[in-house]
Amino acid sequence: MEYRKIKDDDDEVQEDNDVASDLESLKGKSHTGGGGGSTERINWKRKGVVTCALTILTSSQAILIVWSKRAGKYEYSVTTANFLVETLKCALSLLALTRIWKNDGVTDDNRLSTTYDEVKVFPIPAALYLFKNLLQYYIFAYVDAPGYQILKNLNIISTGVLYRIILKKKLSEIQWAGFILLCCGCTTAQLNSNSDRVLQTSLPGWIMAIIMALLSGFAGVYTEAIIKKRPSRNINVQNFWLYVFGMAFNAVAIVIQDFDAVANKGFFHGYSFITVLMILNHALSGIAVSMVMKYADNIVKVYSTSVAMLLTAVVSVFLFNFHLSLAFFLGSTVVSVSVYLHSAGKLR
Amino acid sequence: MEYRKIKDDDDEVQEDNDVASDLESLKGKSHTGGGGGSTERINWKRKGVVTCALTILTSSQAILIVWSKRAGKYEYSVTTANFLVETLKCALSLLALTRIWKNDGVTDDNRLSTTYDEVKVFPIPAALYLFKNLLQYYIFAYVDAPGYQILKNLNIISTGVLYRIILKKKLSEIQWAGFILLCCGCTTAQLNSNSDRVLQTSLPGWIMAIIMALLSGFAGVYTEAIIKKRPSRNINVQNFWLYVFGMAFNAVAIVIQDFDAVANKGFFHGYSFITVLMILNHALSGIAVSMVMKYADNIVKVYSTSVAMLLTAVVSVFLFNFHLSLAFFLGSTVVSVSVYLHSAGKLR
Repeated sequence: MEYRKIKDDDDEVQEDNDVASDLESLKGKSHTGGGGGSTERINWKRKGVVTCALTILTSSQAILIVWSKRAGKYEYSVTTANFLVETLKCALSLLALTRIWKNDGVTDDNRLSTTYDEVKVFPIPAALYLFKNLLQYYIFAYVDAPGYQILKNLNIISTGVLYRIILKKKLSEIQWAGFILLCCGCTTAQLNSNSDRVLQTSLPGWIMAIIMALLSGFAGVYTEAIIKKRPSRNINVQNFWLYVFGMAFNAVAIVIQDFDAVANKGFFHGYSFITVLMILNHALSGIAVSMVMKYADNIVKVYSTSVAMLLTAVVSVFLFNFHLSLAFFLGSTVVSVSVYLHSAGKLR
Repeated sequence: MEYRKIKDDDDEVQEDNDVASDLESLKGKSHTGGGGGSTERINWKRKGVVTCALTILTSSQAILIVWSKRAGKYEYSVTTANFLVETLKCALSLLALTRIWKNDGVTDDNRLSTTYDEVKVFPIPAALYLFKNLLQYYIFAYVDAPGYQILKNLNIISTGVLYRIILKKKLSEIQWAGFILLCCGCTTAQLNSNSDRVLQTSLPGWIMAIIMALLSGFAGVYTEAIIKKRPSRNINVQNFWLYVFGMAFNAVAIVIQDFDAVANKGFFHGYSFITVLMILNHALSGIAVSMVMKYADNIVKVYSTSVAMLLTAVVSVFLFNFHLSLAFFLGSTVVSVSVYLHSAGKLR
């Protein structure tokens, strides 16, 4: 039912896209300026900048997590941190908007006020993520943590499949080959002596892992659909509304999971300098994800975060004296080839 | 120097090829018969048959090795077995030739007698293999046996590089990507908990492994050059001369390595039913390799033997209750994608 609904929405998205771009070309006031060639170059540059930003933020995020684990266990409540991440993202979007209003004035595309029709779909990704995070507590009854890390690579496949089905965008056969390789390469790079245990996962464990991968892929693809629905709409306004609902859903999570702890020990109990850095980093990478959805797509996002995972391991060699395994080298090579295939296999 | 020599020979090969195909088209007596379309179809069919034969023979070869190891240690001398393999291949080539002589009569292309110019290059592959096998005894000072199995995958890369340099044949970029993946996939499929030790291989160990990979790749590519030098020449005659030198070099190996054992215990000491099966299998797969060199090429040979390795593992699950690792599944998927890329990436 949900899927049907999305598909209808999607048809709407495509129509709206056409209308919006027609309007934009009629008005001739695209802020990327003049000729088609230069617009394309600016688009490419912007796509490159947001993708690099996401890659760097994601890998530094993983490094912060390793660092904080080395420094001791998490003592702060994760739900309050998530709530602060959403709040910070909201604040940063508003800050960006006030600058834009000062420079360009308030227009239809950058005004904060919205309609029910525009805003009604914005809670859905936040709800999907909340649901996925709740499921996460149950999957550990069937899979251990390292096994879960490996099963998370199913996200790559689910994102590709849902991207194809829901956004109706095509990948060439070579790009599909690259995408399968991306999943294999990432998993190979994470292999260790206990990895084979994941093959003993029971059927309910597999089903939950697949459902979680679908939820996560669905949330990502749905966010792209929402953000691209009205291309001329300022991304900061779209982000603002996404994050408002993120705040709301995370507030619910605090009440459900951590109400007692927060009530007794206080909201900021256990926060340290590194916690603040992690919140800042999560907020910035969340914004980078939105930007990648706006100016590129979910496929680019998946490639970017996968490459980030490999970068993290390489940086960790220098920071934490990590040892890279043969499996890591093999997996990294496969991922590199898959990145090449994604660009070499572009549909003409 | 050797390389220079080969390159000169290679230019010769190409000229000869042209002359030979000119002659063939002039004579119009190609035994594959009539129109271009049907010739092409027959060529494809032949290529397919020899490739499948090689795949099946190679995987059953590996299964026989596992079986013989389960049954107990090798008690026979490996050099005498190798000598018998060459002798059997020689005998089978002669048998095939007598049938051809009976049906088609003796022609320039199928007569056994040869010239010094034709035969002078035939000892080179056998000599290269002998040299490689001797080196094999020394590399174990630097690498353990499982590590050597992993390093042997360098053969895939060396074959590709030498194929490009010596035979001057081009692979498309997508096919190169596939070839790198083939090497990564095969290595991934073989990973186990001790594989990381191979990363601690010392520099002399790496150098020896690379030299052995180059020798092995060189022998394969050189054999292809010899066999394709005169396309109209009957493959059984070419095989006969190759195997005659194989017999000679293996006789030398018996004298160097196993003279005492053979003199004291006899030539056939320790032979069992399974030894006979293994010799038969090695002979048939040796002939299949030659056929693949004649009607396909070294790249097809490498793909065929790699896929055989994976088939072996799958069959071993049923025969010997093997457990397949997660690494095996990931490696097999990467190899499958690489096979697809090799065919999808064909230069037009």
